[in-house]
Formats: sequence, structure tokens, C-alpha cells
Amino acid sequence: MANSKFEYVKQFEQPDSLLPNTWIVVRLDGRGFTKFSTKYAFEKPNDKRALDLMNAAARSVMSELPDITIAYGVSDEYSFVFHKSCTLFERRASKLVSTIVSTFTAYYIHHWPVYFKDSPLSPPLPSFDGRAVTYPSVQNLRDYMSWRQVDCHINNLYNTTFWTLIKQGGMDGTAAELMLKGTFSADKNEILFKKFGINYNNEPEIFKKGSVIFREYELVEPDPGTNNNVVEEAEKTTTAVPEVKSKSQLEKEKKARTKAKIVVEHLDIIRDEFWERRPWLLSGKPGKVPKEKP
Amino acid sequence: MANSKFEYVKQFEQPDSLLPNTWIVVRLDGRGFTKFSTKYAFEKPNDKRALDLMNAAARSVMSELPDITIAYGVSDEYSFVFHKSCTLFERRASKLVSTIVSTFTAYYIHHWPVYFKDSPLSPPLPSFDGRAVTYPSVQNLRDYMSWRQVDCHINNLYNTTFWTLIKQGGMDGTAAELMLKGTFSADKNEILFKKFGINYNNEPEIFKKGSVIFREYELVEPDPGTNNNVVEEAEKTTTAVPEVKSKSQLEKEKKARTKAKIVVEHLDIIRDEFWERRPWLLSGKPGKVPKEKP
Amino acid sequence: MANSKFEYVKQFEQPDSLLPNTWIVVRLDGRGFTKFSTKYAFEKPNDKRALDLMNAAARSVMSELPDITIAYGVSDEYSFVFHKSCTLFERRASKLVSTIVSTFTAYYIHHWPVYFKDSPLSPPLPSFDGRAVTYPSVQNLRDYMSWRQVDCHINNLYNTTFWTLIKQGGMDGTAAELMLKGTFSADKNEILFKKFGINYNNEPEIFKKGSVIFREYELVEPDPGTNNNVVEEAEKTTTAVPEVKSKSQLEKEKKARTKAKIVVEHLDIIRDEFWERRPWLLSGKPGKVPKEKP
Amino acid sequence: MANSKFEYVKQFEQPDSLLPNTWIVVRLDGRGFTKFSTKYAFEKPNDKRALDLMNAAARSVMSELPDITIAYGVSDEYSFVFHKSCTLFERRASKLVSTIVSTFTAYYIHHWPVYFKDSPLSPPLPSFDGRAVTYPSVQNLRDYMSWRQVDCHINNLYNTTFWTLIKQGGMDGTAAELMLKGTFSADKNEILFKKFGINYNNEPEIFKKGSVIFREYELVEPDPGTNNNVVEEAEKTTTAVPEVKSKSQLEKEKKARTKAKIVVEHLDIIRDEFWERRPWLLSGKPGKVPKEKP
Repeated sequence: MANSKFEYVKQFEQPDSLLPNTWIVVRLDGRGFTKFSTKYAFEKPNDKRALDLMNAAARSVMSELPDITIAYGVSDEYSFVFHKSCTLFERRASKLVSTIVSTFTAYYIHHWPVYFKDSPLSPPLPSFDGRAVTYPSVQNLRDYMSWRQVDCHINNLYNTTFWTLIKQGGMDGTAAELMLKGTFSADKNEILFKKFGINYNNEPEIFKKGSVIFREYELVEPDPGTNNNVVEEAEKTTTAVPEVKSKSQLEKEKKARTKAKIVVEHLDIIRDEFWERRPWLLSGKPGKVPKEKP
Repeated sequence: MANSKFEYVKQFEQPDSLLPNTWIVVRLDGRGFTKFSTKYAFEKPNDKRALDLMNAAARSVMSELPDITIAYGVSDEYSFVFHKSCTLFERRASKLVSTIVSTFTAYYIHHWPVYFKDSPLSPPLPSFDGRAVTYPSVQNLRDYMSWRQVDCHINNLYNTTFWTLIKQGGMDGTAAELMLKGTFSADKNEILFKKFGINYNNEPEIFKKGSVIFREYELVEPDPGTNNNVVEEAEKTTTAVPEVKSKSQLEKEKKARTKAKIVVEHLDIIRDEFWERRPWLLSGKPGKVPKEKP
Repeated sequence: MANSKFEYVKQFEQPDSLLPNTWIVVRLDGRGFTKFSTKYAFEKPNDKRALDLMNAAARSVMSELPDITIAYGVSDEYSFVFHKSCTLFERRASKLVSTIVSTFTAYYIHHWPVYFKDSPLSPPLPSFDGRAVTYPSVQNLRDYMSWRQVDCHINNLYNTTFWTLIKQGGMDGTAAELMLKGTFSADKNEILFKKFGINYNNEPEIFKKGSVIFREYELVEPDPGTNNNVVEEAEKTTTAVPEVKSKSQLEKEKKARTKAKIVVEHLDIIRDEFWERRPWLLSGKPGKVPKEKP
Repeated sequence: MANSKFEYVKQFEQPDSLLPNTWIVVRLDGRGFTKFSTKYAFEKPNDKRALDLMNAAARSVMSELPDITIAYGVSDEYSFVFHKSCTLFERRASKLVSTIVSTFTAYYIHHWPVYFKDSPLSPPLPSFDGRAVTYPSVQNLRDYMSWRQVDCHINNLYNTTFWTLIKQGGMDGTAAELMLKGTFSADKNEILFKKFGINYNNEPEIFKKGSVIFREYELVEPDPGTNNNVVEEAEKTTTAVPEVKSKSQLEKEKKARTKAKIVVEHLDIIRDEFWERRPWLLSGKPGKVPKEKP
């Protein structure tokens, strides 16, 4: 029995490959996580277990998809970055997005009991949506990452103050909201310090900076003698004619990436230093594997 | 601290809303399920537990997303259909695809222990990718559904014969493949019957027809006096000026859908009868809730 | 000398084929025609020569592109409709739009001296922009056409009244605008009639209805005995599995279209009658060539 | 009379804005120019009048659209480049393509009698189709330009040899084609030189290099002391956060461009020198207006 009579319906599938030579960011967000975090009594303003679970799921995604260069997470969102030279799934948007979102969800559900021992999941289950965005230049990509980290900072400072006013100051939500309306960062820092003796700078880095995940190679010491502009360098090295890599070379690079240790850190990714010391992130070429310590 | 300096990166997000007044199909597929099914020793050619798990996950998806009209699954794939009048997520492709794929994955992982009691999941975990396709007419949509069900039939007949030749006929894979090369359906039916006494028609419906999931209302008896063409009827009633439904009306319909029982069946969805007796599938209007039996 | 080193740049071309089985409308608009019409002293509110030139150009477009089913023009805009089964240029949006816009422009410039004998064109020359939109159902398409014709009516009634107030009533633009602010159609009809003795109904059809261009075949007399719903009929006959036409059949149909007379009319295209009597417009099949009168 | 009942059809218009911070190339091509060039007896292999007409039309396009940075033409095709920072028409693809194609066509028809005095145009008229492609990096853009110029060279060498074999060698087309099959550039140069005493290098530059059009400012002398890499420089200066220019600044730059002289040259655009001496092409900032000679 031939299937040809109906097969014409395949013609309705529209191509969705992303523009070559652009950085691909897939960002996922928790769906209805306000309600979800209430159901499982997430600690406010930050639940360490929930963040660790997000990081564990993201780490697993990076481990299964060696094409991902770097990931950045905050709250219930995570951004995964593919290098501009990436050709995974022919750069098809729906394939990239659905694969990342599905893999992330699988590990989130799977790892849940590790982080929430006494709260087994029950329907409705947590889920995530996602989208892909392309960025033509390294600067655009870095600005995207900075955007997310600044957002993390703004929200965390607000939430920390808000919940301190409630938990330690005895305010209700409406009063706390009213008090914070129109305040600047300095004001919130002062409230925390003067009223509650809290130095915001001493808050845990994971809350203040979010989490960045990448493959770890040997750090590169910036050469103080040169004007080491990492963005310029990256544009220069990565915008030329796309390298046509042989299959064996690609396989080799993939293996190198698979072997590298994936680390979760809480660093400043806005300043140049982070990128200068880890040139493999922007060059797309695996770095030097660090020697094991004796 | 304002975030405005970096916020310009939002401009790079490209819209991806699907054309209005078209049927949206989101199809997901298991990633690397050949390897995965070997790891967990899925029974060949069909593993009832695996299919039941797929159906359970799909049923949960439909339950969480009342906008889905009908779903059809076979093997490690599932198609979810949104009515052409659907405006969920402003019809954004990536949002629709990622939400369905994520929700499906969540339930697949969550329900796994129910169906595979003695095989706990371990990384790499199962995951799914997906895509959205739009179909302008009811006929196109029905042809899509028919395409998938014909595919189910073709593959299942082949696989049933192939694995019977191996399991009962003592052939190896290469010999079985060679024997089936170039055969027609009739040939395979004959091999099954003459060599092994198997009447393919008696195989379980779930294997032969796949699974169709929908909300159950009272069946409509076709009126023999009229030329009841369900496709015509559906085009007629659904292609007019889009109804502008009030919020309360939408809420009411959503509630009606939420209350309806979601059933998993193994029916012929190619012939008109299936659609004629369930007019709510194509009209997009909830049917009559069946009276409970005393 | 091989060109392969640079040829990779072709990969950046993104596909833009329009969804199959949908009606394609390409609408073009004059660029900066307010200024342009002043430069060449177009008569207000309507310049018959300018409209005739638009129609001549559109007629030439239809003549060169037999795939166009119908066209509708008003003021400095023109819409060209391709049947939903059309596969011209693989339905590539940019190819369809640019071809129509270029052909239209060519004839507009070429025919100019015929309609504006004493006003030779000089730079900056008139030009047009355009875009393609797809409509899934016949009803959507007809609503698009109705939208344009209602727009024609609204604008023409306004402009006729506005310019009569100025030319015959001696008002300046500001006063006329003020007087018409907030008025309904009935009010404008009354102003025209009571103040100036003008019965709007007697205005030329080309001004009131715009221009519709199509291939003329024998009109079909509506059968009063049947409930002749042209939209239903059209959906029914045109949404089925796409006919796979042989090359010779396509060639034959193209020839039939090429031979048919292209007419420019000023008819009501909102009511069913127009479409019922010209079933070839929605069916996509050439009609019966009218017998020549002896 | 309100138009609201039909206005919903506007919802079917899909956005088509091109990715920000990418170079936009709109390339147009003559439709059916083989036939067209026969009709008007274009000289083979190159008709100077036809090329001059193409250049005149392209020059007019650049003059009317100051946002165009550079254009390159060969045979019946022309590419127009918008700087990556360009926001004309909100970067909508169909608007950019249709405007350029329409303006080009208008001038092509209008200027025709200047270049083809004794061959008045008659239907079917010449027309052009076009498309937009985006390139993320300066290198990609320059490679695109190089691709077109290499193509020009390859085709012109072939055509020159082919037509010399026919016109001076007395061959027919089939014999000439056969003779050139599988030959390299060196072979063709040798045929021309040995058989016909033609030194290909002495052919007119317009035939060998095509035509490049741009606004002329004062040339910049490359500094021999520095490693002046124009591509690096351009990436560096143009990939940063998009400058938010004030309206008055944009207006000022537009004016500067409008005043600059638009020149048509036949230069090598593959080598760095062309770009290094004209930094305004890649920086997007108007250069220094050359002093007028006394």
C-alpha cells in the first residue's frame, strides 16, 4: 500500500533554518512558576534547591549537546548559546529549541527527587517554553549575556529587600511594595544595611550573579603589555570565511569537548576579564585541558 | 540601575506567529529512540508498555492544554492538532512547540516508573524534538492525519512480518530484510498467514491503527437521508469571518472542554465516519456531554 | 578560475515560499503619490487619466502573468490575486512581489505619455512598493477584496464631499476638514445633495467602485431553484487534494487564459452575484469562451 | 460606514523585518533577458549601450535612496547594499526589494530612448525580479561582492572567447561550445591571443570588472607603517552597540550623502585596496567631500 496519496501534506512544512554565521541563543523559561513555586513551598526570595536543580538540568543539557558553548541561568530561566559556526540540526530553529527544552525538562523531572527529597512531584508537572534568537556579532552576544545578568542583579536586589521587609520587618506585601516603589539600588542597599544590618555584597554569589556553565580548559593570563581586546579578537577570528572542517576534525573537536569538565560558576560575565581568560568561549575552538594536579 | 544599555538586544527577537485561520499540527518525535529502545529492551515489533506510556503522556498534554482538539500517536511520535480558530500564545510557533514538547517530556519521565517498574531511567534520558506545521483546509488536515495512520499501517505490517520471520522463523535480520524487499501488503499478509498461521487482522488495534486521543461528547448519528459530507460542512462552518468570542464565552468553552472526558482510542481516522460522528473535532465547538449511566 | 571560494555566500539566502493551498494577494502602492500627484497636477478628487493609466498598467501585468486570477485597483494601489493552487515561481514571496511590481512600473512609465500627453515624466520618477499576503479560505479572500472596495467607497465619498466644499463651496481645506469631522455617510450624501445638488449615486462607477480586472468567459446564470452558495461551492471544489496537473494540461489552461479577453470593469465585488456569475474566478478553471456575435 | 467587518484581514499580513545589525543586499535580475536582448539586437558578448543603461538606472536608484552604500552590476543584474546599521522601512524585506526593483525599472524604461535611440520599446517590456539577503559580517559582505565580480570575470572571459570564435573564427555556436568545454582561463586567454591576436587584458574594464557605484569622498591613503586591516577595522567599528542617532543627526548624514557625487567605476572590488581607500563604505559614515579644483 503506497502512502503517496497523502504524502503531499509534507509540502506544508516550512523551512526555519537560522541565518548562518550568527550566534544562536535558546532561552527557556519556566511555565507558571509563580504558582508552581508556591505549590512546592520554594523559599523566598531564592530557593537554593530550586536553583541547584535548574543548574543540574542545564549541566546535563550541555553534557548531551557538546555544541553548546556556554549557558547562563537565573531564577526559572536558562539561556544556551551555540557558536556562530555551529551547524547542528542544520540550524533549524524548532529542532534546536525543542531538543533543548525537552532535554532540560527530562533532567529537571528526573533530578527533582535529589533536590526536593520530601516533596514528590504531582501533576500538573513543571514545564518550560523556549525560543531561539540570533545575534550577528560578538558584541551583540555579550550584550545579551550582560542583559540577563543585569536583570538578575536588579531582580535579586529588589526581591532580597522585599522579602527582608516582610520576613524580618514584619511588613505585608503591599506595604513592602509601596516602600520600594521608585527606589534606586542605593536606597535598597541602605534599607538592607541600616534597618537589618545586611550587607548585600555578602549575599551568596549564586543569588547575586546567577549561574554560568561552560567547559573548563586552562585559563589564559591576560598579557598586560598588549591592548587585549577580546571582542575585537573574536570578531576577527570568527567572521572570516566559514572553515570547512573535515568530519574527522569535527569528530575530534566534539570528543575534546565531551572530555572537558563542565563547570557551574557564579562569575561576572559582563566585564571583559571573564571572556579574555576563556578565549575558547568566543573562538569556538576547544582550549587546553588543564593538567591534573598530583 | 537601569538595564537600558543592553536591552536593545530584544530587538533581535523575530516574530514567528503562524498564519491565522489555519490548522496547526505540532508533531514530536523521540530522539534516538532506536538506541533508547534497545537500552530498555523494548519488545519487538511493539512494546505495549512503551505505547501506553506515550499515550499517558499525550493524554496529560491534552489535559493541560484544552486548546488541543485531537492527537494521534504511533511508535515514538505524536501529533497534536489545534483548531484553525485557536489563538493560544498568539499562535507563536516556538511557544506552541516548546510547551507541548516540554509538557510531553515531563509526563513521559514522570510516568515512566508506572509502565517500566523494573527499569529505572538513567542518563542519557529520553527526549523529544518537535515542529509546527499549518494546514489551510480541513481536507489538508484530514490528509495529514490519514498520512500518519497509513504510515502506521505500513510500518506495523512490515515490522510484524519482519520480527515474526526472526522470532518464529529463525531468520536473522539480513535474511528477513531480503525476503521482504519488494513485497506488497498482500505478500506480507500471506507470509504471516501461510507460514505462521497469523491473521494480521487479529493483531491488536493499538498496533494496527495507532492511538487517537480526543475529548468525548455524545456521538452524532449520521442522518442517512442527507448527503452528509463532513468536510464540506466543516469548511463551511469554520472558514467564515473569525468569530470574536467574548472572554467569558472563551472561558466557558474552556471549562466545557476541561470537564469533558479525554479518551484514548484505536480507531480508523481515515474514513469519514470517525469525523462525522464527532463533529466537535472539526467545528471547534464542544459537543454534548453524555448523560451518565445510572 | 573556480568561484568556489566565495560561493558559500549563497547559503545566506533564506527560503520564502508561501504556504501551499492559500490565496496569494500581492498589493502594490504608489510611493509618495501625494507629492507626485501635485507635481503633475492630478485632478481632485479623482483624475480619470491617472486611474486609466493604473488600469492599463494592471491590465498589462495580467496579460503577462496568466497565473493572476483577478485584480482590484483603487487610487494609487492595486491588488493582484493568485489562485490557491498557483505554483508560479514556487510561490516565492520576493519573486512574486518583485515581478509584479517591476512589470507594473514598466507599463506605468511606458504608457504615461498616452494618458498624460502634455506632461512628460521627469525625475524623480513614480515608483511602487508591494507585499504578498496569503489567505487560507475563499471567505478570507473575498473579505480582503471587500475590505479594499469598502475602503474605496469610504474614501471616495469623503474626498468627493471635501473637494466639492472647496471647489464649489469656496471653503479652504481646514474648514472643509472641520465640517466633515465626525460625519457619517448619510451626512456627506446630504451635504452633496442639499448644498450642491449632487446625487452621489450618479458619480462615475470607476470613482465609486474602483476597477476590477479579470479574464472574461461566458457568465453563468444563477439557478434560482438552488441555494447557490458560491463560497461553499468554492471551498468544496478547491480545498481537496491538490490536483497534480500534467504539464500539457497546465500548458493548455495557460493557453486558454492567454486567449481570453481581459476586461476592466467597475462592479460590486462585495455581493455574491459577482462571484456566482463568474465561477472561474474561484474555481481556478478557465470558463467557456463566449461566442462571437455575428 | 465602518470598515471594521472586513478589516480583520489585515491580521494575515506577516512581518518580514530583516535581522538587525546585518548587511542587506538586494539583488535584481533581468527577467527573460536572453529573449529580450535578441529582440533588441544587443551586441554580443557585451552591448555597451545596455550596460550604460543598467548603470544609469542603478545610479538613479542610489540617488533616490541615500541609504544605499554601494552597488555592483554586471550583465542584467545589479546588487544594492545597505549598511548593517540601516533602518530604512524598518528593514522590511518586501518593502526594500519592491522599492528598489520598482525604482530601477522606472529609470530603465525612462532612460531607454537615450541609449537605444532607434529602437523604441514595445510590449512585452523589460522587467526585473529581486530578493534580499542578509550578511552578518563585513567579511561575508565582501565575499558576496567578490563572488559577483569573479562571476563577471568567468562569464566575460568565456563569452568573449565564445563570440570571437563565432564572429572572427567562423564557427557556429555548437562548435564553439564544444571547443571551450573543459578549458581553463589560461586556455581561453591563449585561444584569444594565438588565434585572434586578442590580449584579453586590453578588453574594456567595464566588461572585465563590471560596474561599481558609490558616493565619492576624498580617498584615504593607506598608512604603510600600520597593518591596516580594513575588515578588522570595520567589524570593530560597526558591531558595537547600535548608535542611537538623533533625528537631526540622521537628517544631517542623509544630506551629506545627498550632496556627495555618485560615481560609476570599473574597479577591482575583491582586493583590500578598494575598501581601504574608501573607509566610508564600510563605516557607514559619510567621508570628506573633496575640494573642488580651481
